[in-house]
Amino acid sequence: MSDLNVTHDPARRSWIASANEPGADFPIQNLPLGVFERDGAAHAGVAIGDHAVDLAALRDSALLVSGSDAWLACDAACDDTLNRLMSMPPRYASALRAALSDLLRSDAPQRAVVQEHAGALLPRIDTLTMRLPCDVGDFTDFLTSLHHTERHGRYKGLADPLPPAFKSLPIAYHGRASSLRVSGGEVRRPNGQYRSADGRIAFGPAPALDFELELAAWIGVGNALAQPIAIDDAHGHIFGYSLLNDWSAKSIQWFEQVLGPFLGKSFHTSVSPWIVTSEALAPFRKAPVARAPSDPPLMAHLHGALDQREGGLHLELFAHLSTEKLGASGAGAVQITHTHLDNLYWTFAQMVAHHTSNGCNLRTGDLLGSGTISGADDAARACLTELTNAGRDPLRLPGGETRIELEDGDEIVLRARASKPGAVSIGFGECRGRIAPALALAPCPAEVTA
Amino acid sequence: MSDLNVTHDPARRSWIASANEPGADFPIQNLPLGVFERDGAAHAGVAIGDHAVDLAALRDSALLVSGSDAWLACDAACDDTLNRLMSMPPRYASALRAALSDLLRSDAPQRAVVQEHAGALLPRIDTLTMRLPCDVGDFTDFLTSLHHTERHGRYKGLADPLPPAFKSLPIAYHGRASSLRVSGGEVRRPNGQYRSADGRIAFGPAPALDFELELAAWIGVGNALAQPIAIDDAHGHIFGYSLLNDWSAKSIQWFEQVLGPFLGKSFHTSVSPWIVTSEALAPFRKAPVARAPSDPPLMAHLHGALDQREGGLHLELFAHLSTEKLGASGAGAVQITHTHLDNLYWTFAQMVAHHTSNGCNLRTGDLLGSGTISGADDAARACLTELTNAGRDPLRLPGGETRIELEDGDEIVLRARASKPGAVSIGFGECRGRIAPALALAPCPAEVTA
Repeated sequence: MSDLNVTHDPARRSWIASANEPGADFPIQNLPLGVFERDGAAHAGVAIGDHAVDLAALRDSALLVSGSDAWLACDAACDDTLNRLMSMPPRYASALRAALSDLLRSDAPQRAVVQEHAGALLPRIDTLTMRLPCDVGDFTDFLTSLHHTERHGRYKGLADPLPPAFKSLPIAYHGRASSLRVSGGEVRRPNGQYRSADGRIAFGPAPALDFELELAAWIGVGNALAQPIAIDDAHGHIFGYSLLNDWSAKSIQWFEQVLGPFLGKSFHTSVSPWIVTSEALAPFRKAPVARAPSDPPLMAHLHGALDQREGGLHLELFAHLSTEKLGASGAGAVQITHTHLDNLYWTFAQMVAHHTSNGCNLRTGDLLGSGTISGADDAARACLTELTNAGRDPLRLPGGETRIELEDGDEIVLRARASKPGAVSIGFGECRGRIAPALALAPCPAEVTA
Repeated sequence: MSDLNVTHDPARRSWIASANEPGADFPIQNLPLGVFERDGAAHAGVAIGDHAVDLAALRDSALLVSGSDAWLACDAACDDTLNRLMSMPPRYASALRAALSDLLRSDAPQRAVVQEHAGALLPRIDTLTMRLPCDVGDFTDFLTSLHHTERHGRYKGLADPLPPAFKSLPIAYHGRASSLRVSGGEVRRPNGQYRSADGRIAFGPAPALDFELELAAWIGVGNALAQPIAIDDAHGHIFGYSLLNDWSAKSIQWFEQVLGPFLGKSFHTSVSPWIVTSEALAPFRKAPVARAPSDPPLMAHLHGALDQREGGLHLELFAHLSTEKLGASGAGAVQITHTHLDNLYWTFAQMVAHHTSNGCNLRTGDLLGSGTISGADDAARACLTELTNAGRDPLRLPGGETRIELEDGDEIVLRARASKPGAVSIGFGECRGRIAPALALAPCPAEVTA
């Protein structure tokens, strides 16, 4: 896993032409992992350009040496989920990546064999129905953008908009794992209790529906209960990353929140289907920058020499909004957010070290969300609440539409891209979701009393 | 599932003598389910007196009619967990209960056959290592005792000690599933960040360690995303109940809590091993009583005619504390809490209906904790924070010891008992845990800077 690894070689190109196009999310330097449905069964795959290598077909071919680390990794990926592969020591996934890079490079000796079996081995991604890549035991969501946190504190009129603990530890809460869903399809607007404009408590389709643009880390090898992960070992426990949209019904959240978010977020959380591996992101590592010299010093368990050098990523993230009207007019989606991972005050290694510092065990497939990645710039506000200054300045869209909250039929697409001079930039694919109207409520019984 | 069910018949006794002793937790009217280790494998079992019926041995015997509902239920229980059985329509577990009740009753025709194979079929519980009975997808913890909530509000000096939402909805947060552990063994004191007495932020073994006495419901059949469970259907989704000790490091919790409890509770949560089924508890159902006539009326989705009639339980709960000194002196454990499920302001059916009202999906094996079941009486305070009035009035123990927080070596045992005139009372077994000293911290690096 170094910049010298041939799988990162910027000169390497693939014989699959779509992988070499400028701006392609999945060039041969990326090779993210996902799970899709084929013939009614779950198959793991690796994205390359517009195609995916079907790992079940690859395992059953003669293209990998049976019993080799690459073959064992491929075999481990042939469950319904990637959990077993992700639980193995990193050298297995690394060997599979190297073998795939060699099979797919322009001058691959086995190119003709792969092409001969392309029907089985290389389906087009746009023909596939993707699934969540893992069974997620626990989903944790952090709050690590200072700008997001400060803006929300100001909207609430707090004298000190930043909670006292913010610069001492990465604040987090347990999220809901059961309602994590892969990108795509409908996001049903929740019904819920909220305080309406006249001060009364209502139950019905939740207003103030919002998106939140996040990056999320997938845990590879976990830790045992009561055995914390040291800060400079933490990165090695992160198998890779996906995009996450933490859909939020702010109206429900504001009323219910005593012990943290609950029904305001548990109705649906969207995750992009491809896991961009830590290994693929290695060329894009950088020092984190959000902590100011005047900030309180880091406690020992959150301070790692390695993490201080390369705990960040050269990674830009984007949100796009499309409305039914924009779609019908042919204008399509509008980019509403452009932000950078530099806006996180805490690194993912610090999140892992903090999370396990009390002995809490992380398991393979656990998902750690960054929290909304908002920056100081207006363009880097990563949710509608911030983009509209809590509803005071409606977002103006082409054609005269405005938004202060998501309306039924609105679609949000998240994207991200790692890039650095001298490296071939890689993307994350998309995290997409469209708001569907709330379920009709059951008729109210004639008599309701306490 | 009615009071007329023969499995509840108070006249029925078992040929296993220990099941008939006064005060036995597991008479023939209970028959709770659990999972234990035997010969290195997980076996499901049903407790009867001091013994457990090994369901793998029962399945492989000729005692159940192959292919019958009871046999199918028994077979479904022979995974490593009870999830598959719990996901089936309730008639399967009900048929297994009826078959076991018939095999174990005093006048059972097959008594001699069972006794002949008692070595395989009926191990003693005290020889077994219990496991968590289920894979828990998500653990939700509620806050449903008005007295617990008000006392904590007063300790914080709040003008209105009850959060505005308390009487509108059952407040809850997502808990940590990975660190759920079955009763017994050590509970490692966590390290963590907290504000020390001098106001500085420290990291180290957490002071203010506490227990919290809760009842927890296990979800049987779940619901699909975006398909809420109606209030009067909710009880049918609860397979059964266990005791839960929500160990809490209050020092960590008070400092970190912005989006709810996180590391203050995620280091370990203890659950009693036996699931007392909803069917076994049917004779003990009663109307809930905590809501006052002057309280705001229930919203329609939380108001069920059935739930209003029998959403509560005749159930008393107890906590016992033992210290190393009490243990050494032979004095043993001291009962420190005696409370009643009547102290919950919300029923479990209301918790299920609220939880799914936004479309959130519950899955088989999900665990819903009641929150600390404190009552108005001093004896009914169900955590040390309340028992000591937030540390102001230390708890006095025999032999001159006092406690304002749990110390290393202290052991907490939770128990509960359902009883009602005319019914044979049933117990839950115990939920036990002893505090072990925190892990030593790694030596601090010589230089720590931001």
